[in-house]
Amino acid sequence: MNRYSLNQATTKYWPLEDVVAASATAGLEWIGLWREPIQEYGVDQAAKLVADAGLKVSSLCRSGFFTSTDPAERQAKIEDNRRAIDEAATIGTSVLVLVSGGLPAGSRDLDGARGMVRDGLAELAPYAEERGVKLAVEALHPMFCSDRCVVSSLGGALDLAEQFPASQVGVVVDAYHLWWDADVYRQIERAGERILSYQVSDWVVPLPEDTLLGRGMMGDGSIELRRLREACDAAGYDGPIEVEIFNQQLWDAPGQQVFDLALARYEEHVI
Amino acid sequence: MNRYSLNQATTKYWPLEDVVAASATAGLEWIGLWREPIQEYGVDQAAKLVADAGLKVSSLCRSGFFTSTDPAERQAKIEDNRRAIDEAATIGTSVLVLVSGGLPAGSRDLDGARGMVRDGLAELAPYAEERGVKLAVEALHPMFCSDRCVVSSLGGALDLAEQFPASQVGVVVDAYHLWWDADVYRQIERAGERILSYQVSDWVVPLPEDTLLGRGMMGDGSIELRRLREACDAAGYDGPIEVEIFNQQLWDAPGQQVFDLALARYEEHVI
Repeated sequence: MNRYSLNQATTKYWPLEDVVAASATAGLEWIGLWREPIQEYGVDQAAKLVADAGLKVSSLCRSGFFTSTDPAERQAKIEDNRRAIDEAATIGTSVLVLVSGGLPAGSRDLDGARGMVRDGLAELAPYAEERGVKLAVEALHPMFCSDRCVVSSLGGALDLAEQFPASQVGVVVDAYHLWWDADVYRQIERAGERILSYQVSDWVVPLPEDTLLGRGMMGDGSIELRRLREACDAAGYDGPIEVEIFNQQLWDAPGQQVFDLALARYEEHVI
Repeated sequence: MNRYSLNQATTKYWPLEDVVAASATAGLEWIGLWREPIQEYGVDQAAKLVADAGLKVSSLCRSGFFTSTDPAERQAKIEDNRRAIDEAATIGTSVLVLVSGGLPAGSRDLDGARGMVRDGLAELAPYAEERGVKLAVEALHPMFCSDRCVVSSLGGALDLAEQFPASQVGVVVDAYHLWWDADVYRQIERAGERILSYQVSDWVVPLPEDTLLGRGMMGDGSIELRRLREACDAAGYDGPIEVEIFNQQLWDAPGQQVFDLALARYEEHVI
């Protein structure tokens, strides 16, 4: 249980104070936070709230979105990413999760878009290291490649991360996005010390109309969550394991109920 | 134009005789056929119709679906696949396209399911070779991994195919399913002589409610179709290029209109 971390996005409409209190009451060590709600709460206040509850922050989600053909827009994103790094430092986490961004409007140039991600990382990585923050590149499921994230596999994330020191850039292993990959266990081994987060949910079909909200509760779907966790362990990862589920039904349910269910399913299917 | 082949599934409701006549009139050499409509028409009659029109059959779609925990069901599928091989031989194509099948109901054992696919290929490959038919393993997009096809990348398809002689088992390169993969160009090179078909459509978002019908007309989406075609060429593939689009709007449009549009878009975006 000492590795468990509920990412607050799983209980999206539950106030930050409640999810912090529930995590502390359950004896957890970790909590996963999201930029928008802590900005709303006040980043300094959120840092104090979490520290006072005796919790550590497993990761801050989410920044990135580097891909644009407009230089001014790319620069604005870099500045927003610097703010995200500052927020991560303030909130006391060493892991900032980055989603690359999709293909620029009207473009089919995947290599070019991935180059923009590399350029963005290059601009941010030294600054992040100064602030004690590592950039965690997250591959999203290939169904999001065109409109959300041109990094679609763990191998692709590592191709980017390995262009930087492991002290600056690593990867997220999110089971939902990666489970289908025949190469994923080899890539987890390759990732080794670059694994900065293991995130769990489950793959359920049919997908909802908004495919971003298709994630299921652990145990409700097809993913070998324990096997993936063991592979991350074997690769040397011993950090927190985040439950991160975007699901309208769960969001509509009472926060404590979702909290309890996620913890039980974690014990049953992950650890 | 001598490589162009319209897969009849693109004009699903157009009678076989019409799509054959249109292909011949347009001066094409190839046509792609589907099992159900030629069974309905009569396989021998369909073979005669196509041959009389001076067309060759680029591939027969679709068989496979090897994954079941029920041995009797698996055996029934093997027998159906033998019939598909016979149909391919009768219709005069050397390429039978196979979709693996998803995870068996209630199972999370991806390796086990992929093993079932390998076992199915092993049972069928010698029989296919006797009939002059190659088994073309098609990776489907990872969003279909759980419920339709546990082979989700070209690398995964090749991991299976390479367990058999290239005279028996190859792969389909379907742009829609593979375009997002950072590793796809390396895998196309690896595939070499095992490439039995290059299929084109386009990736458009948002996906429709029935994700099987999400394919777009070439040029309407994000895929570098020409670059992928050139990679297949460089790997040694010089066979037919199939347009295969499942899209309700196109199905609802007049066959000849879709036929003309696909041909124009092929010239603009593929060749």
